[in-house]
Amino acid sequence: MARQRARELGIELGSMETGKLNAITDVEGVGVGHSTLIEGESIRTGVTAIAPHKGNLIDEKVVAAVDLFNAYGKSTGLPQIIYEGVLETPIILTETLNTWRVADAVVDYHIERMGIEPSSLNVVVGETNGRYLTDSLSRHVGREHVFEALDIARSPSGKGRVPEGNVGGGTPMTGYGFKGGIGTSSRVGDGFTVGALVQLNCGNKEDLTIAGVPVGREVTLPKKPATSSGNSIMMIIATDLAIDSRQMWKVAKRAALGLARTGTYGGNVSGDFTIAFTTGRAPHLGDDDKFLNPIYKATVEATEEAVVNALFVAETMTGHLGHIRYALPIDQVGEIFSRYGRELH
Amino acid sequence: MARQRARELGIELGSMETGKLNAITDVEGVGVGHSTLIEGESIRTGVTAIAPHKGNLIDEKVVAAVDLFNAYGKSTGLPQIIYEGVLETPIILTETLNTWRVADAVVDYHIERMGIEPSSLNVVVGETNGRYLTDSLSRHVGREHVFEALDIARSPSGKGRVPEGNVGGGTPMTGYGFKGGIGTSSRVGDGFTVGALVQLNCGNKEDLTIAGVPVGREVTLPKKPATSSGNSIMMIIATDLAIDSRQMWKVAKRAALGLARTGTYGGNVSGDFTIAFTTGRAPHLGDDDKFLNPIYKATVEATEEAVVNALFVAETMTGHLGHIRYALPIDQVGEIFSRYGRELH
Amino acid sequence: MARQRARELGIELGSMETGKLNAITDVEGVGVGHSTLIEGESIRTGVTAIAPHKGNLIDEKVVAAVDLFNAYGKSTGLPQIIYEGVLETPIILTETLNTWRVADAVVDYHIERMGIEPSSLNVVVGETNGRYLTDSLSRHVGREHVFEALDIARSPSGKGRVPEGNVGGGTPMTGYGFKGGIGTSSRVGDGFTVGALVQLNCGNKEDLTIAGVPVGREVTLPKKPATSSGNSIMMIIATDLAIDSRQMWKVAKRAALGLARTGTYGGNVSGDFTIAFTTGRAPHLGDDDKFLNPIYKATVEATEEAVVNALFVAETMTGHLGHIRYALPIDQVGEIFSRYGRELH
Amino acid sequence: MARQRARELGIELGSMETGKLNAITDVEGVGVGHSTLIEGESIRTGVTAIAPHKGNLIDEKVVAAVDLFNAYGKSTGLPQIIYEGVLETPIILTETLNTWRVADAVVDYHIERMGIEPSSLNVVVGETNGRYLTDSLSRHVGREHVFEALDIARSPSGKGRVPEGNVGGGTPMTGYGFKGGIGTSSRVGDGFTVGALVQLNCGNKEDLTIAGVPVGREVTLPKKPATSSGNSIMMIIATDLAIDSRQMWKVAKRAALGLARTGTYGGNVSGDFTIAFTTGRAPHLGDDDKFLNPIYKATVEATEEAVVNALFVAETMTGHLGHIRYALPIDQVGEIFSRYGRELH
Repeated sequence: MARQRARELGIELGSMETGKLNAITDVEGVGVGHSTLIEGESIRTGVTAIAPHKGNLIDEKVVAAVDLFNAYGKSTGLPQIIYEGVLETPIILTETLNTWRVADAVVDYHIERMGIEPSSLNVVVGETNGRYLTDSLSRHVGREHVFEALDIARSPSGKGRVPEGNVGGGTPMTGYGFKGGIGTSSRVGDGFTVGALVQLNCGNKEDLTIAGVPVGREVTLPKKPATSSGNSIMMIIATDLAIDSRQMWKVAKRAALGLARTGTYGGNVSGDFTIAFTTGRAPHLGDDDKFLNPIYKATVEATEEAVVNALFVAETMTGHLGHIRYALPIDQVGEIFSRYGRELH
Repeated sequence: MARQRARELGIELGSMETGKLNAITDVEGVGVGHSTLIEGESIRTGVTAIAPHKGNLIDEKVVAAVDLFNAYGKSTGLPQIIYEGVLETPIILTETLNTWRVADAVVDYHIERMGIEPSSLNVVVGETNGRYLTDSLSRHVGREHVFEALDIARSPSGKGRVPEGNVGGGTPMTGYGFKGGIGTSSRVGDGFTVGALVQLNCGNKEDLTIAGVPVGREVTLPKKPATSSGNSIMMIIATDLAIDSRQMWKVAKRAALGLARTGTYGGNVSGDFTIAFTTGRAPHLGDDDKFLNPIYKATVEATEEAVVNALFVAETMTGHLGHIRYALPIDQVGEIFSRYGRELH
Repeated sequence: MARQRARELGIELGSMETGKLNAITDVEGVGVGHSTLIEGESIRTGVTAIAPHKGNLIDEKVVAAVDLFNAYGKSTGLPQIIYEGVLETPIILTETLNTWRVADAVVDYHIERMGIEPSSLNVVVGETNGRYLTDSLSRHVGREHVFEALDIARSPSGKGRVPEGNVGGGTPMTGYGFKGGIGTSSRVGDGFTVGALVQLNCGNKEDLTIAGVPVGREVTLPKKPATSSGNSIMMIIATDLAIDSRQMWKVAKRAALGLARTGTYGGNVSGDFTIAFTTGRAPHLGDDDKFLNPIYKATVEATEEAVVNALFVAETMTGHLGHIRYALPIDQVGEIFSRYGRELH
Repeated sequence: MARQRARELGIELGSMETGKLNAITDVEGVGVGHSTLIEGESIRTGVTAIAPHKGNLIDEKVVAAVDLFNAYGKSTGLPQIIYEGVLETPIILTETLNTWRVADAVVDYHIERMGIEPSSLNVVVGETNGRYLTDSLSRHVGREHVFEALDIARSPSGKGRVPEGNVGGGTPMTGYGFKGGIGTSSRVGDGFTVGALVQLNCGNKEDLTIAGVPVGREVTLPKKPATSSGNSIMMIIATDLAIDSRQMWKVAKRAALGLARTGTYGGNVSGDFTIAFTTGRAPHLGDDDKFLNPIYKATVEATEEAVVNALFVAETMTGHLGHIRYALPIDQVGEIFSRYGRELH
């Protein structure tokens, strides 16, 4: 069975409608770019960039917020978002030990590509740990990959369908003991679109739940996943709803609820971070926040589906030290779903 | 079909073992007391007390922490727990507008019943809003109910089986559009027991998920639940694992993941609070926190099951203004479970 | 020498201009009411109410924020302010063990005086501990005092000069070993007014610093202050600048810097809380926050001066168990100031 | 007048005793290393390393905490400290845009110098912005400077007197419009030593207050400081008191009070961060936290004095674009102190 996204297989998560692409790029203006580096037997890494708009974020900041569900992680730039409530650079996702050279390259990009000489720059890089499949210590990701991912994210080609699975920052990642990586999804509500993009690298096999079905417990793999089964997840939430940073933060907190539906208990060395932004401007304040309920629900659903899409799309990968991470076997999933009263296409 | 707890019906949530009573009282020393006030057509309220031990908590404080997943709520005493890392009174649960007179009665209890003249006292009262079934404005709960609940919680009779459903603070509460209230559960791991007790008053009917089965969407009720369908949940976590307050806080955060498994997206006016404490003493610090993984998992499972137990045990109630809140119809649940590949006893 | 405010004596704190009354009531619409209860030898207590406007805050909420510098304290309502970013009741200040019956009386006030039947109400009561001079355990403050303070705060008479020192919630309080209580001050900047009102009950005598002069170390008292020298401070900040809750929070954090200028190191059982609100509406978002600098500076200065005013105005008080708390001896302060190169009027 | 530390000139800040060196290195085991890079007309930068002990922190972590008073800044590694409560690398201070390449070099250092192959590493780098005197955009700091600073900090030579002023990360920094940079101080209490080290780059001239004397207002400079007068301060607190992370956090919060005594109101683009750690092990928990009062006081005093020392020791510097930052003129300070009733040596 070829790799397909969950919804193409007939799996519906939640009840709200998706956007046209069922991707974070359904939020007008948002672009995503991947630079994927797969070389020899030990290099399986990359960079993913998410740009809120194609312009210069320093001059046109977007309202943003973060939720630190479990801040075991090296992400940069998060404290300033909490205090200033804005994002002033695109968000970059990569592998743990590359974090800082990637961040440094973002400065280069501003100077060299954008012609900006920033006096200060709150570079936002998120990471998860890919060492099971890639030679992390060598930190292979550099300027060229950051430039490539940012160039795509800021161009028209970054605004369409989003490649998922073993791409960009998600290249070597593991989800629930299966091959993980990048996944995305979106929801459309009354007056807003919300999109989620995750770099999935967390969870234990036995906990994986899809649409309420205990898939992880029932699937058999050629080999039990190594205990170094990965950890951490970066969750990026984008919307066009005009809200302020405090409201965006409450939306961001719901991403963890979507993640929870896929079964994880939030392992201690799992950095479970959410970074959320809105391209909406001029929030109307003064009312109470009840109007946020639909976007909370949409965020939970889109996050859940982004996690599941990462698992459905990512393909089996062999990497560093001959380690293998198996893709979620979709045929088995179909059988298990049948036993639990649900039919896939 | 008589009201039974989820596990008695054959529903297993998670994979860890429960304690002997499958209740928060499985944690040695912890006691629970309810005072339930049901009178006439409009009074459906009460008080639930959770005592970490039978002694004087001012002199023998327990390590504690709180998680404010969504702090729309009036709970008292939480900021001081965050800073001091201890609990110095039992925890009391009641209905929103009773919060403060209940808190005041806790001071009375210390003076009159315990012979203590506190110079300061961090009274901890949690609340959810029961106005759909009870005449909230009249604030019927008073000293005698607080005294009764505390007396029981601190006595041997509070250390056994915990009444669930329409009792104590949970009396008028609603869960996912059904009759909610008090629920409890526990898990036993290697070297620790963890228990959860919830006062369930949140969620929309269509979102209710039990063991992954979309029960809320499929159950039919005599009447669609009123939109004033309740909100908020108080989650109390108790353990005997010797950990410090920062670690306890990370455990507390996992309760929201257990709640998420039952389907809610965390409504804006839902106060989703967790208060956690440990009776363990002398934590061994200096190691990393990976040893917490089993208690995280246990906390997720116990919280999920406590929520489900509240729904299974609570009975249909008619109250204020003739409002009716229907119990979760267990026979229908059985049929729905069958359709989703799971059989109840 | 009669009791006078610091500025009347020629003490200038900071460099910005004060408002007309040099009081929190310089912020248009803000009212303050005290109910002071001094009876017999042991009752020295009361209630202070601060109303952002005279209307119904449930329908016309004001943007608000809190800073928990050291949350050893029993204040109610703070978590919800953090999440919802608004104040929906006036702020009440009282003595520790009265906190909850005062909060309950605020509900009564809404029902009985304002004709509102709240389905939920986030009552905000702050407290400091006055037990050295008053019989705290008996909790003498009740409905009538809350009603009186709120009636004044919401009437024209609450919008003028603010009584300071031994009034309202500040009646039995101690500041830096001297008689403390209520103090207020304000600053006017370009396009905004900011006011501070404190209920001062913290600090050790030897640390008191006024305008940089080590007054506490040099003043002699008839008797060394008892070690039970009080603790905690409630700081209320009001402005009319149209900002959002996140920005208001950053303003609130500056109050602790103003407090620090008066010498305290923030004792462990000192609850140092700031509650801040703005009557401004429709904040213009999207710019960066540099425009906040003047209001930060103004907040530091107004808070510092409010603390000092409490000490200058409060008079020596004898109370419970014959305890005496001496007023700051202004004549000595004049001499000390002279020695440090500063002359009072 | 030669540059001298404040205390050598007779300025006493606070009342507690200093350690032998009046430096952060008075805390047993703590080492500090600077690498200073001054070249040509435009390069004025460097790196400062603070090592809690000379060993491998990954295996022997120290309990740590952070306070984000105003998190406008790019510091790395702080979220994980909040959650895990430990420091697993030395702390590095540098200039803003160098942050990430410095962080990357810390990984190199672990691999190449320490022979460690970390699977993950929470690199902690703090920064302030030195662009007024150095060509920030070129990011001149690299591996060799990080290696040099770390080598010193971990060697016996890093455990003695700490060079202050225009050294290491502090090289191009500005304090209150004067030349700023690195400063340190310590206090000894009953059973503990606490040390502070700051990289001072914040404040406006007119606000500078030393020992309560309004020095900034009264000092005249050859030229009014450029408005781009710098911003941000990194405050590092070290102790040997055996406390847990929550307690360490409460200590860390007091650093801002020490800073406040020197006059700043906390400008919006001032990143005011405190990172605190203890070399003490096996905290005795269960008691209340009142025993922390002396270390709170000590922290306030040591931080205040560290700030003042930076100003007293730093010398006038000319740098990038011919910009000049003048040293605090000590002779004028002497005269001003005299007018305010205080004599310097």
